[in-house]
Amino acid sequence: MKKLFLVGTGPGNLDYILPLAQQAIMESSDIVGYGLYIDLLGDLVKNKTCHTRNLGQETERVTLALDLASAGRVTALVSSGDIGIYAMASLAFELLDRHPKPEWLEVSIETLPGVSAMQVAASKIGAPLGHDFCTISMSDLLTPWESIEKRLHAAGQGDFVVAIYNPISKTRNWQINHAREILLEYRPPETPVVIAKNLSRENEMVKVVSLVDVAAEDLDMLTTLIIGSSDSRLLSVQNKQRVYTPRGYSKVLK
Amino acid sequence: MKKLFLVGTGPGNLDYILPLAQQAIMESSDIVGYGLYIDLLGDLVKNKTCHTRNLGQETERVTLALDLASAGRVTALVSSGDIGIYAMASLAFELLDRHPKPEWLEVSIETLPGVSAMQVAASKIGAPLGHDFCTISMSDLLTPWESIEKRLHAAGQGDFVVAIYNPISKTRNWQINHAREILLEYRPPETPVVIAKNLSRENEMVKVVSLVDVAAEDLDMLTTLIIGSSDSRLLSVQNKQRVYTPRGYSKVLK
Repeated sequence: MKKLFLVGTGPGNLDYILPLAQQAIMESSDIVGYGLYIDLLGDLVKNKTCHTRNLGQETERVTLALDLASAGRVTALVSSGDIGIYAMASLAFELLDRHPKPEWLEVSIETLPGVSAMQVAASKIGAPLGHDFCTISMSDLLTPWESIEKRLHAAGQGDFVVAIYNPISKTRNWQINHAREILLEYRPPETPVVIAKNLSRENEMVKVVSLVDVAAEDLDMLTTLIIGSSDSRLLSVQNKQRVYTPRGYSKVLK
Repeated sequence: MKKLFLVGTGPGNLDYILPLAQQAIMESSDIVGYGLYIDLLGDLVKNKTCHTRNLGQETERVTLALDLASAGRVTALVSSGDIGIYAMASLAFELLDRHPKPEWLEVSIETLPGVSAMQVAASKIGAPLGHDFCTISMSDLLTPWESIEKRLHAAGQGDFVVAIYNPISKTRNWQINHAREILLEYRPPETPVVIAKNLSRENEMVKVVSLVDVAAEDLDMLTTLIIGSSDSRLLSVQNKQRVYTPRGYSKVLK
């Protein structure tokens, strides 16, 4: 059976990769992915044929993985975070649906999820994703800004916690400042915002700022933000800042 | 140092639990959780003191875990899925914030995330969470139905993929049918909906229905739903139904 694994590797280090996902990588002869994330796999990819491609070469990576698998190589396409969330799994099915090579249809695809950046960020700071939330990518490369703007307004109206992916890139930076202004129409300036970077790696940074103080110049393309809802609360325990979004148990507790 | 681990165990079996989370359980002398999820941990909790509490006893579970930890027992509070998403981590911080016992403030809390039900469901069927999505719980036990309704309308207006948690319980079942009617105001009746149950366990069921056919009587409290956006697509590969939500690469591909 021709086989392609789509594997989410979380923040990258082995401690954060599901045993099932590690098993899939071990069973593969060929690994396709972005160089940095393959390097983090260390011994897990020793003696395997690694095919690294740069950022921006997403279509090339998925095409190569499907080509290798359909040629009979057991292949793992790896992606940081959860490969099913803003990552390569969706593109693999999009190519199979819209631009398939006939031989790709013989490949059995198995997806192994991983923890996404918002989950790792949340775990480091408290429980900001404890109640209804949404995720919005600021990348307007493939999604019109009007759609992103519509979603930001909807997130504000619905009072969702908002996880922001791809806040800025090398070629665009104004979107996150617009997002801040839109959400300020719906929630207070002091709403806590978690800013996280280099999660579980050297130079990890997780901090809390007020919504009104979010600014593009403090962020980079590896940053994830979690913007609280109007219910999210900031507290200090043992001199450590914590953010959580309650389910509302306090209402029923004495 | 007094220590409490908040641990997400995903669907429950060890293959789906992060090595870091398994390590935290191994370091603990006491495990607190719902009986079924502790049982699934098998050998990992052998020779540990397990404190099982039933569904509905959420506050008791968190209080016990904080009490044990502040008495000097290294304790793991376990929760299925990601403990940070609709689970116990938020309640732990809510109790610390609103109803703390003084000794709880000496406990160092470390959270280990896990894969949430929507992620496992998505991995089994394709990539429905491939673009902007939101999560909404149907439980109106602690959240007024008006807030839930407002979020469903916002999800419709923003054209988010919608992951539905707690669609029904033993004491309530009409909410999911209302949710269907609200979303049908914004998206077509044939919108694909992923219905998943008993993920990664015996009797696992993952299927796709049309939005118009979602009905409370087909669901139970262990079911998770993922309702597509207007962009989500259903396709068949090797006689297997697949659902994905594209980022939009097709627009730039020849």
